[in-house]
Amino acid sequence: MAEKEKLTIAVLSGDLERALAAFMLAVTGASMGMEVSMFFTFWGLNIIKRNEGSIKSKGLMRKMLNLINRGGSRRLKLSKFNMFGLGTWVMKQLMKDTNMPSIDEFIAMAHQMGVKLIACTTTCGVMGLPPVTDTFRSEVESLAGAAYFLGEARQSKVTLFI
Amino acid sequence: MAEKEKLTIAVLSGDLERALAAFMLAVTGASMGMEVSMFFTFWGLNIIKRNEGSIKSKGLMRKMLNLINRGGSRRLKLSKFNMFGLGTWVMKQLMKDTNMPSIDEFIAMAHQMGVKLIACTTTCGVMGLPPVTDTFRSEVESLAGAAYFLGEARQSKVTLFI
Amino acid sequence: MAEKEKLTIAVLSGDLERALAAFMLAVTGASMGMEVSMFFTFWGLNIIKRNEGSIKSKGLMRKMLNLINRGGSRRLKLSKFNMFGLGTWVMKQLMKDTNMPSIDEFIAMAHQMGVKLIACTTTCGVMGLPPVTDTFRSEVESLAGAAYFLGEARQSKVTLFI
Repeated sequence: MAEKEKLTIAVLSGDLERALAAFMLAVTGASMGMEVSMFFTFWGLNIIKRNEGSIKSKGLMRKMLNLINRGGSRRLKLSKFNMFGLGTWVMKQLMKDTNMPSIDEFIAMAHQMGVKLIACTTTCGVMGLPPVTDTFRSEVESLAGAAYFLGEARQSKVTLFI
Repeated sequence: MAEKEKLTIAVLSGDLERALAAFMLAVTGASMGMEVSMFFTFWGLNIIKRNEGSIKSKGLMRKMLNLINRGGSRRLKLSKFNMFGLGTWVMKQLMKDTNMPSIDEFIAMAHQMGVKLIACTTTCGVMGLPPVTDTFRSEVESLAGAAYFLGEARQSKVTLFI
Repeated sequence: MAEKEKLTIAVLSGDLERALAAFMLAVTGASMGMEVSMFFTFWGLNIIKRNEGSIKSKGLMRKMLNLINRGGSRRLKLSKFNMFGLGTWVMKQLMKDTNMPSIDEFIAMAHQMGVKLIACTTTCGVMGLPPVTDTFRSEVESLAGAAYFLGEARQSKVTLFI
């Protein structure tokens, strides 16, 4: 049996539009029979951070960073024209209007379709996040570092850095 | 005859510097004998939106988004140091000074060299744009979705996400 | 003897987090036995610009651009939550705390591990920088254009655009 072609997506950005693009491609790739991995790093960790509950992080710096950068799929904003939330709100209306899934729906869909969601351990530290599975949503399969990402990318037909 | 190597570029950003980078690479790839496709999505749609005339979009949300995000190749700005247009103006002067083509010239050049310009249908909706060829410049060959992009990327020697 | 697999990274961004991601991947790739090239363009040129001394650029436009965009590895900022330097300072504290190398240390490390650092000639002009090796740190091996980058990318197992 032929092995599946791989698609590996690194998501560094936590902007709403880049998160949407990443999930559209991941879900489309999976539906085309590709084996898809998404690797979340830096602001991208915001996308897969738990929405509910607060994260217990040690030290003043981490507490500060978690206060100004709360994260979670429902707090993602557009990189432009956010205008105190108005631009992001307009786009979310248009998403509903054109039947585009929300980020929460995309995460559930991707998970069901076998897309592997991986949190970058190396950058949890500088983002003030405890590098444990509890920090992230239940759909997140594992935590791994840059070597794991490059290992996947080397075997991939398509690698995207978003 | 050997098949041409493919270069596929996804352009999500509408920032002047990223648009320039995308076209430099597309035009260089074509001049090296590669078969080049550019796939514009989200803010990248601004680059290939018609400059003249207004777009007839239905509904208040779409009208609002088109008002705040007019788009068109001549309205692209730098992502940093725009400073109410000053930074962008300075860079445009330096572009002239160093004989770098403008975005309009790059689009014409790319089109003449056989670079395929494709607008993403899936994101037209959330950007408040009617997903028809009339929305875009005449150089834009077609509209297509994420599956088309991934299909091209799978066959490509180089895929870039800009 | 088998040839080494190549990793080619284009760095367009001058944001601290993207610079860090690029160097983490470059250094990890080199440690995995890959042959790594980093190609700096547009704001990415800021990362490898000399920290000390001023750059002698001719013409008012270039002088202006160099004044507002001083560059250098120690002036890189976060793309978000910079908050007049506070956010960037917090992240730099967390980098120390988690033993993550600074950009200066990453550049030295990458250079020692044989990672090739290349400055993009084509964009030096529009960034107001003289396209000579003197503009950049001593670790920068050479200057080259878009054709060189695509040539490397065509031979690479993994190409990333950051």
